[in-house]
Amino acid sequence: MIRHLLSGGDLDAATATQILDTAAEMATVAGREVKKLPALRGRTVVNLFYEDSTRTRISFEAAAKRLSADVINFSAKGSSVAKGESLKDTALTLQAMGADAVVVRHPASGAAHRLANWVDGSVVNAGDGTHEHPTQALLDAYTMRARLGRLAGLSVAVVGDVLHSRVARSNVLLLSTLGAKVTLVGPPTLIPVDIAQALAPGTGVCYDLDTVLPTSDVVMMLRVQRERMNDSYFPSAREYARRYGLDGPRMRRLPEHAIVMHPGPMNRGMEITPEVADSPRSTIVEQVANGVSVRMAVLYLLLGGNNS
Amino acid sequence: MIRHLLSGGDLDAATATQILDTAAEMATVAGREVKKLPALRGRTVVNLFYEDSTRTRISFEAAAKRLSADVINFSAKGSSVAKGESLKDTALTLQAMGADAVVVRHPASGAAHRLANWVDGSVVNAGDGTHEHPTQALLDAYTMRARLGRLAGLSVAVVGDVLHSRVARSNVLLLSTLGAKVTLVGPPTLIPVDIAQALAPGTGVCYDLDTVLPTSDVVMMLRVQRERMNDSYFPSAREYARRYGLDGPRMRRLPEHAIVMHPGPMNRGMEITPEVADSPRSTIVEQVANGVSVRMAVLYLLLGGNNS
Amino acid sequence: MIRHLLSGGDLDAATATQILDTAAEMATVAGREVKKLPALRGRTVVNLFYEDSTRTRISFEAAAKRLSADVINFSAKGSSVAKGESLKDTALTLQAMGADAVVVRHPASGAAHRLANWVDGSVVNAGDGTHEHPTQALLDAYTMRARLGRLAGLSVAVVGDVLHSRVARSNVLLLSTLGAKVTLVGPPTLIPVDIAQALAPGTGVCYDLDTVLPTSDVVMMLRVQRERMNDSYFPSAREYARRYGLDGPRMRRLPEHAIVMHPGPMNRGMEITPEVADSPRSTIVEQVANGVSVRMAVLYLLLGGNNS
Repeated sequence: MIRHLLSGGDLDAATATQILDTAAEMATVAGREVKKLPALRGRTVVNLFYEDSTRTRISFEAAAKRLSADVINFSAKGSSVAKGESLKDTALTLQAMGADAVVVRHPASGAAHRLANWVDGSVVNAGDGTHEHPTQALLDAYTMRARLGRLAGLSVAVVGDVLHSRVARSNVLLLSTLGAKVTLVGPPTLIPVDIAQALAPGTGVCYDLDTVLPTSDVVMMLRVQRERMNDSYFPSAREYARRYGLDGPRMRRLPEHAIVMHPGPMNRGMEITPEVADSPRSTIVEQVANGVSVRMAVLYLLLGGNNS
Repeated sequence: MIRHLLSGGDLDAATATQILDTAAEMATVAGREVKKLPALRGRTVVNLFYEDSTRTRISFEAAAKRLSADVINFSAKGSSVAKGESLKDTALTLQAMGADAVVVRHPASGAAHRLANWVDGSVVNAGDGTHEHPTQALLDAYTMRARLGRLAGLSVAVVGDVLHSRVARSNVLLLSTLGAKVTLVGPPTLIPVDIAQALAPGTGVCYDLDTVLPTSDVVMMLRVQRERMNDSYFPSAREYARRYGLDGPRMRRLPEHAIVMHPGPMNRGMEITPEVADSPRSTIVEQVANGVSVRMAVLYLLLGGNNS
Repeated sequence: MIRHLLSGGDLDAATATQILDTAAEMATVAGREVKKLPALRGRTVVNLFYEDSTRTRISFEAAAKRLSADVINFSAKGSSVAKGESLKDTALTLQAMGADAVVVRHPASGAAHRLANWVDGSVVNAGDGTHEHPTQALLDAYTMRARLGRLAGLSVAVVGDVLHSRVARSNVLLLSTLGAKVTLVGPPTLIPVDIAQALAPGTGVCYDLDTVLPTSDVVMMLRVQRERMNDSYFPSAREYARRYGLDGPRMRRLPEHAIVMHPGPMNRGMEITPEVADSPRSTIVEQVANGVSVRMAVLYLLLGGNNS
């Protein structure tokens, strides 16, 4: 088993599959009367968040607590970080306080990798800049496998602002490893020509959403970052929604069995319409539930699963 | 047992009494060496707070932890809510993460009711706009019963800005159910003519505090919201304190056995003087302690009490 | 055992030594598979922080959780405190909610002492204004003893803005009790002539860092508060670093065995250079780890250690 989880590309197929299988076991706990497992009793998980992300933080917190770990939340706003402490000194401090795992969200791409060089414990990348968000990719893979029965051979369209999306990046890396075929879809300004091949061999690019729909098993809509909409390379909101938003008519061009994914939170009416978001094809709520199971699996395997 | 606790009017007399009786049992735990009960082990309680309210959040957190539940605090400031996620999507997310109960504080009246339509778990209204705050009413009723031995037939004066008070509203509804007689006291601009009857039949109104004191068993002072003092319908602070503030001379016009309540935090010198707040008639600190017991009872009955 | 820990001067030598010895036992827990002890199960520790201090809060939180206590974090920003509630009413509220210990950080000197007058539980001063920070002094003493084998007779130079340092003050008081000899070092504007003797008899003052280095067993660098650098009594940053900063050449004037301490977070390049901070003489990371052990010992002894 690996010691850190920093990138969707860290995982070979066997390890990724082990995580998904373990997550499936963890998911059965959710149905029990007592949802707690004693596996990580006495272990401390620190959520070190330099950016607000309540959803991700709560998902990791719920996962760690169901495994009986102690959880300490460290919001870097207004902390000694604001007093100028370096990431390295913060990391050494958390380690000295006994953190067995640090779950880190940071605005700088590469922050999680740097952190992993400094600590003896495990580091889980919960989003670093526009770079990676590997547990999101794992929960997405878990959701596809649960809904469609397999990952190898699936055609997955990833739609939107691929350039700035850590979700897209981690998904491309992990899905390639697991044998799915990814096509990146979006405006040319948001999918530079060489990005697909730079990510993983076999990844395709298409600027027209309607072209890819009939052959897609999975359509993964990316969240539009409102703060980017005023940038010069970004189409107008109306233009974006018209060309890359998923609405009812577009959804009906998908194969019967195809599913629609979104990492949340959604901009309803922008990249996805309510009709689509609330349709039976949508896996958005399942993704959230699967996120807890996948994070339980990751923490379990990083912190103790291979000892027991 | 009910599934949610949204309003002081949700409870019939039998259910309200069951909660108060259960709270009395919970209170005995506070005297033990180990104050924890295993009743809610493996259950997750999410405190979803869209408004700051440290007192209420801590009270629910302490209650849930004494029952061995896992507690996750979700302060909606700076969260994905700020990124435009709807209350419904947030609710579905929390449910998908495994929240067994959501304790919600929200600035919009009716938010807790809407939330309850969307989730399978239990919703506890911890204050929605100017609408309701039912656990406050329950802890107030508990405190009256503990001090005066009964609720039926008590004369309770609720004093202050009734118009905007969720505490007043929930108390009127619950106390009517339990047989107490409520009189609303305050300036006419803060008690519109039809509010009392609209709340519950039998509720009286009086604009003169001194008139009601000699016949009151309970005087419940409402907190003045400083942010409202500049509104045109609000008397000047000095005028308000002079006419509706409870000071020593006024307190001495109460019957010997009467008690003085306040939901806290107090504006000492405004609606209540320190002499009154710190007198033996004051139940303010007891209310806080009873709040934990009542919230333990509510969580216990909503989440598992009827199974065991 | 004492009931509160408010000042480095509260402790006689026997009690201080008992805390250090207990902390040493607690430190052995960190090496175990399961790092939790059941000692404080059912007890509630409230972290009442009126100032941001993530490091100190997390250290207490980790300490309390390893002893199986429930921890409730109360950040006073945006709370009812902001609505004008007094420290006393907040204290009574926390007590009523069942807090067995309140760990308080407050910008006003003396706040922890006042709090201790109002509550039945234990109060631990986690920093009050420029006054005291006794658990920091204990963890510093623990670190010196662990590195150098003793405290009696040690020569300790405390360097920097002594005037505003609660760390300096608590250290002087505790170290005098334990038989170490303290010399305060810094610019005259930051060490008024009578401060040393006012703190403890035998405490020396020196305005020249280079003079004291060859005879020091311990050099404790204080953190420069950036917000103070613009004050008229404060030397320019460059001047301060030149005269009172610890760099490599200065470090090499210390005796072979001497250690360098810093309470963190460091301003690297200001009061300490990276060469010194990362040298084997530096105990900065050990101090953090020892902080958790010392706080475990303090909570254990205050809350239940003498019963068992």
